[in-house]
Amino acid sequence: MAQNIYDDPAFFAGYSDFPRSRLGLDGTAEWESFRALLPPIAGKRVVELGCGFGHLSRWLAAEGAQRVLAYDLSEKMLAAARAASADAAIDYRRADLDTLVLEPQSADLVVSALTLHYLADFTRITTMIHTALVPGGDLVFSVEHPIYAARAVPEWVPASDGRDAFAIADYSVEGPRRTDWIVDGVVKYHRTLATMLNTLAGAGFTCRAINEWRPSEAQLAANPDWAATELTRPMFLIVAVHRPEGRSH
Amino acid sequence: MAQNIYDDPAFFAGYSDFPRSRLGLDGTAEWESFRALLPPIAGKRVVELGCGFGHLSRWLAAEGAQRVLAYDLSEKMLAAARAASADAAIDYRRADLDTLVLEPQSADLVVSALTLHYLADFTRITTMIHTALVPGGDLVFSVEHPIYAARAVPEWVPASDGRDAFAIADYSVEGPRRTDWIVDGVVKYHRTLATMLNTLAGAGFTCRAINEWRPSEAQLAANPDWAATELTRPMFLIVAVHRPEGRSH
Repeated sequence: MAQNIYDDPAFFAGYSDFPRSRLGLDGTAEWESFRALLPPIAGKRVVELGCGFGHLSRWLAAEGAQRVLAYDLSEKMLAAARAASADAAIDYRRADLDTLVLEPQSADLVVSALTLHYLADFTRITTMIHTALVPGGDLVFSVEHPIYAARAVPEWVPASDGRDAFAIADYSVEGPRRTDWIVDGVVKYHRTLATMLNTLAGAGFTCRAINEWRPSEAQLAANPDWAATELTRPMFLIVAVHRPEGRSH
Repeated sequence: MAQNIYDDPAFFAGYSDFPRSRLGLDGTAEWESFRALLPPIAGKRVVELGCGFGHLSRWLAAEGAQRVLAYDLSEKMLAAARAASADAAIDYRRADLDTLVLEPQSADLVVSALTLHYLADFTRITTMIHTALVPGGDLVFSVEHPIYAARAVPEWVPASDGRDAFAIADYSVEGPRRTDWIVDGVVKYHRTLATMLNTLAGAGFTCRAINEWRPSEAQLAANPDWAATELTRPMFLIVAVHRPEGRSH
């Protein structure tokens, strides 16, 4: 079973105070980049894997999704999501993404934000999603960028040019990373970009676009201190892939 | 016109002494990974962009390529390549890859090893290659990995875990990098992985596989010191893409 840190009271309290939790999508630096990779939503049967407080699922419903199946492992987050909206198009469901099996060809679009790096088995989840999508369907997801996630603890180091560089290590050593983030012992899984893209291709997906997130010029103007950090190394990776029409695989 | 460092006498002398120059493909750490992404060669019309001393073109001819058009900007390297072999299947030609235009649908396979990072315009070269390939044709190329190439000068930095980490900076700041490598003022172009893959997709290619090079277990056993460097950050990126059948774009 996937680790359920979000139901840890200390983690839940800490995470609930983050801008992305309090402000929703507008408190999420990478949201505009994520949205830019989404196909049209109206009329679609959408699945969200790792819905958290439900911000994205509510946006999808507001965009006219036919229905949104919103899965999460955390009872606390699902309770908060249900309390925030009674939109009949959204069905919040508790599930362990390590074992969840969706109905074949039941979804036009699967989305997942900053969730899949908690799963040990990327092959299983991508194969399952491919089966769950109709031919012509889309998967759009974000994860921590492997440059950022290669070391368990992000670290800045002074470099010879007088600036702080980002320390990368163990990029090619895939596997669990135990980190103390809000609470001790949070486990995420580091996978290289090549592994993710090749696994998606092996599952039958074709790549539409990838985004190694960097702030827009407007975001840099509003947050001048981001130039020294967010242009140095990408924190988020956003991937948009497609299940081709007319092929079973 | 592309920079022609290889005809600089000091650069040529220095480069000629590298293992990959003296020993050919077997002196090239990433060769086995590159070869693994190549389609069958026999009977193919192949183009090599940046053939250097001709090691790869000679291997392609030995594998049974129908013909190999081997392009390079350096007269010195072409002269050495011609002197090394008189294989009638190989046609060594001088060309500036910044402006070269190959005949449409004239090639079954285009290969390029550690060359495209010298070109300022990645869109032009990939679009030209796509046009030059027959539908069903393949492009396999290597470049310096953008993690490695983001900073002009590679730098190791001591990290808090007592190991040396690799300093990454300016990953999201694309453009020229001026470096002093063998001689002063060598210019390479840093592009993110997302830019390369999205540009290839925009040109009409579908991605077959990417490889962020790391040594094999056999290479690590033969070169134990590589564990501390080559698993820390990938030095090479190898990309295999395909011009799909039955589409003009």
